[in-house]
Amino acid sequence: MKQLKDLQEKAKLVRKWCLVSTTEAGSGHPTSCLSATDIATVVFDRYFTYDIDDPLNPYNDHFVLSKGHAAPLLYTLFGMAGAYPLAELKTLRRFGSAFEGHPVPKYKYAEAATGSLGQGLSVGAGLALVAKRESYGNKTYVLTGDGELAEGQIWEAANFAAHEKLDNLVAILDINRLGQSQETMFGHNIDEYVRKFKAFDFEVMAIDGHNYEEIEQALQATQNPDGKPFAIVAKTFKGHGISFLDNKDGWHGKALKKEELEKALKELEPVNDALRFELNKPKQKLLQSTVNLIHSGLTFDKGKEYATREVFGDVLVKLAEQNQEIYALDGDVMNSTFTEPFKKTFPDRFVESYIAEQNMVSVAAGLSRAGKIPFVATFAAFLTRAADQVRMARVSEANIKFVGSHVGVSIGEDGPSQMGLEDIALFGSLPDSVVLQPCDAVSTTKLISLMVAHKGFSYMRTLRPKTPLVYKNEEEFSIGGSKVLRRSEHDVMTIAGTGITVFEALKAADELQKENIGIRVVDCYSIHPIDANTLKKCMNETEQRILITVEDHFSHGGFGDFTAAALSGEGQVIKMAVRKISQSGTKDELLNDAGIDANHIVTKVKSLFKQPAMA
Amino acid sequence: MKQLKDLQEKAKLVRKWCLVSTTEAGSGHPTSCLSATDIATVVFDRYFTYDIDDPLNPYNDHFVLSKGHAAPLLYTLFGMAGAYPLAELKTLRRFGSAFEGHPVPKYKYAEAATGSLGQGLSVGAGLALVAKRESYGNKTYVLTGDGELAEGQIWEAANFAAHEKLDNLVAILDINRLGQSQETMFGHNIDEYVRKFKAFDFEVMAIDGHNYEEIEQALQATQNPDGKPFAIVAKTFKGHGISFLDNKDGWHGKALKKEELEKALKELEPVNDALRFELNKPKQKLLQSTVNLIHSGLTFDKGKEYATREVFGDVLVKLAEQNQEIYALDGDVMNSTFTEPFKKTFPDRFVESYIAEQNMVSVAAGLSRAGKIPFVATFAAFLTRAADQVRMARVSEANIKFVGSHVGVSIGEDGPSQMGLEDIALFGSLPDSVVLQPCDAVSTTKLISLMVAHKGFSYMRTLRPKTPLVYKNEEEFSIGGSKVLRRSEHDVMTIAGTGITVFEALKAADELQKENIGIRVVDCYSIHPIDANTLKKCMNETEQRILITVEDHFSHGGFGDFTAAALSGEGQVIKMAVRKISQSGTKDELLNDAGIDANHIVTKVKSLFKQPAMA
Repeated sequence: MKQLKDLQEKAKLVRKWCLVSTTEAGSGHPTSCLSATDIATVVFDRYFTYDIDDPLNPYNDHFVLSKGHAAPLLYTLFGMAGAYPLAELKTLRRFGSAFEGHPVPKYKYAEAATGSLGQGLSVGAGLALVAKRESYGNKTYVLTGDGELAEGQIWEAANFAAHEKLDNLVAILDINRLGQSQETMFGHNIDEYVRKFKAFDFEVMAIDGHNYEEIEQALQATQNPDGKPFAIVAKTFKGHGISFLDNKDGWHGKALKKEELEKALKELEPVNDALRFELNKPKQKLLQSTVNLIHSGLTFDKGKEYATREVFGDVLVKLAEQNQEIYALDGDVMNSTFTEPFKKTFPDRFVESYIAEQNMVSVAAGLSRAGKIPFVATFAAFLTRAADQVRMARVSEANIKFVGSHVGVSIGEDGPSQMGLEDIALFGSLPDSVVLQPCDAVSTTKLISLMVAHKGFSYMRTLRPKTPLVYKNEEEFSIGGSKVLRRSEHDVMTIAGTGITVFEALKAADELQKENIGIRVVDCYSIHPIDANTLKKCMNETEQRILITVEDHFSHGGFGDFTAAALSGEGQVIKMAVRKISQSGTKDELLNDAGIDANHIVTKVKSLFKQPAMA
Repeated sequence: MKQLKDLQEKAKLVRKWCLVSTTEAGSGHPTSCLSATDIATVVFDRYFTYDIDDPLNPYNDHFVLSKGHAAPLLYTLFGMAGAYPLAELKTLRRFGSAFEGHPVPKYKYAEAATGSLGQGLSVGAGLALVAKRESYGNKTYVLTGDGELAEGQIWEAANFAAHEKLDNLVAILDINRLGQSQETMFGHNIDEYVRKFKAFDFEVMAIDGHNYEEIEQALQATQNPDGKPFAIVAKTFKGHGISFLDNKDGWHGKALKKEELEKALKELEPVNDALRFELNKPKQKLLQSTVNLIHSGLTFDKGKEYATREVFGDVLVKLAEQNQEIYALDGDVMNSTFTEPFKKTFPDRFVESYIAEQNMVSVAAGLSRAGKIPFVATFAAFLTRAADQVRMARVSEANIKFVGSHVGVSIGEDGPSQMGLEDIALFGSLPDSVVLQPCDAVSTTKLISLMVAHKGFSYMRTLRPKTPLVYKNEEEFSIGGSKVLRRSEHDVMTIAGTGITVFEALKAADELQKENIGIRVVDCYSIHPIDANTLKKCMNETEQRILITVEDHFSHGGFGDFTAAALSGEGQVIKMAVRKISQSGTKDELLNDAGIDANHIVTKVKSLFKQPAMA
């Protein structure tokens, strides 16, 4: 093999920079880079098609580093591909550097932020899915560690990739035997991995991950798609290439000391610092389309009731007719979340993810990276299943629109396991997230349009029960807005609701009006950002400077906390929210049991109400 | 087979009550019960050893209903075992009934709350692990659906069960082909499941799930342990036993209407309502031990610094010497969380869970059900991976102690993927959870003791960096307490810190003292419950009635929100917290970048400070 010597020389340069950069940083995972160096070198030198000047060209091949702690390897590969001078890697892990401890979007060649393990195969499956459906003809390579194969998400992704026949997806499994704290569950029993991936309907080839001929043979085999995703199970050694690191325990996540580095570099000598990868560019380019505000045109009848979850489904179809980038993903609940009409209208842009929420969210991160606008829909409670994937998608700056149905105790008889009661805490804690909760059909319609136009992470809560219209079809809404629904000249305090509790607040206000107690009522359909100005105005204009938030969510981390934070020092914010684990029952029984129905609001207001001195 | 007729008759009675109870409720999943009825009937009639008067006897066999929506089946089985009159099932899904839509602990025969799918096999693995390690000689049966086999957690549990050689664990897979919205990924391709479970090192038998001889044969085979967990892959039909439901699409989660029920019951006739299961009782009993407050006896040197994560590890060993029920679980990071000394001292009570956090948490729920006190340790960021399992463990009222290390931006160079910054939101949103964050070795020691003594869900954040001692070894702490660390007669405002920010607050106070600005400093080591009384007192006793919270956590859903909620109407609470995605850098660079270090506190205080009018 005439390239053998050349590949070996390039691999030495890769190893050098994995070692140098981590020693320079004083921390990092050099040995985790070294086990994958040989195979990654062959991918980049001989197979990787990529326009280094245009990382977002969807015709590029993709290289997803699932084992994010091997970031220095990624940085070295793209450096040797000409993206930047290798000397810049000396800023690894320094404050302000794009070369962080684990890849983040600041580093534009990272297909996703990784570092929470077991997510890369799903991201890769998302990229490969788009490529397949849109016939880009490219490959997606995903490099995983072996420790992370214990994460269940890997098998969700494997099922998904096989089911979608993603034969443009190549999983490279770096089986280096050693985890962080000890040997992995299967060590070097390569057959454990081979059997499992075969059982999950992958094409599988086991190789010596340091033997260039075997690497070449495996990568060659991936070039002949046969309807199955490909797994290269590479037996490797952690720290390979440096004698005192090679297959040695106790070196995970440790940078070499200066003198150890010198010794290591000696072993590599001579190293040709001028070697580079010459990547072929893809022949095609695709311009990313710009996103305008588009409208569903749907209108609703004043006398009728609508479930916001059902309206969401109808709106999505209308918007997807106008914007080809909109995708929808669902987890076997399309008849509950109402993505079913989307599936019927746009089967090529619908992604049935079955009951595997983690994979669904990371696939969506891949779709977003490929320029799509993915809507991810399931029960709000089950988005919690993918909390870590949601977190990492946010770190990845993914443009995902989440829609969680069946929020709160108002779902009724199914009981607490099905109730989304911590979803505002989950999405709301992530910086710059958008969290919306419309109470009626009109606001749902308008807010879905705004979600599409908003480039960034957003989340909408939808309701199981039907609700009457609160707004006229012409009403306009904004992210960060709210609506004052009741107002009099002598309001004593304010009730702010969101979603189902808007109706409880309105009922309470009507009841109190009978006793001449004026209450201002606000619909906070935008939970994050919250409409601080309007709420402050309410506080200032009401006699007792009290604002009561009412929400069908647990007390901590919900709408009330956003409100209290916005109104700190302006008056008293009192939270009415769910404070215990709920149960089965009717919607009204459970709203009452949770203490968030109209009666409880009336009682609370009366307990706080002070007769004006001059009355 | 002489019992055949008898089994068929009993199964008819089971079917009857699955149908009657759901029709009575007007909702539920009768067809999901019917597919599993035959096999469950045989388990209960011929294999299940259980003391109906003592559901917590660990020598009982266990029956975990992973497909929680088949709750009426569970309720009928135990009713026919004599636990209560079957007529009580007519309260199914009613407010106040123990027969909820999905099993919850109010129903004392439920081994865990289920209904979020794919968790039961892990809970069962936890129960089986304890039984194996403590030689109870019993069996754990887990009934799963087929839709839920798409959840990655199933494969985490499968790896775990095989690795731990849980040959006392029997997974019964009810392959009824139909999911909620459509056919499952594999439909009735039974071989897909057989291959996968074999590849995951299970003993596997595929059967016709409605053929009593095959059921009997499979259950017989499970009675001869050979070092492997057992999977019975049962091909079944959803709605089996009633002609118009059998294998029909469109019946998921639908109760029969009255007239449909009549028709169905006609098909079953005659039904012998007097039939019951006669369960054998286990021969042994075990008294649950009571938990007293025990102490590690560890003391620390004033001049030295300690990492609270490391102290946790040492304390746990000392407490486990005194309480045999303490277990520890870790996810391949025992050298970071410091459960490593526990593993070395008590290998029989250590559970290496590898990088599979979801399974780890649900296994812990099983351990808790078996009377153990499990400590679950990993990076706080990776507890997020198991957010749904944490949620369901809370619904299950599991007595789990979570310890999340590497919280906040203060971990430094590894970057945002490794930073626990939404963990307080996750654990804090769950009702009645306990959330603690000690800042030094002494408080860590005392608080771990309190966690053990507290029966219920609790979470401790531990720090990566070392910190100096704040407290004397004799200092006492309490859940719901705090410590005032700085106080003068003319404090203008209060700074409340927790964990690493306590030191920033102290530094800031020292700095401000130089300019004669008196600041009260509080260590809120108990975040939930928060010490509302002390904080109110601080608010009242400081001149400007301002309290600033400083935390190494995202702004929403953290310590600041607990504080603001406790102090609503008492004064102004200002939150200093992390408000953007962080990056790599040193601890001090990142605390500064996040705006939560001493300098930022000083600046904030000065910006708020008003010279007293009489000064």
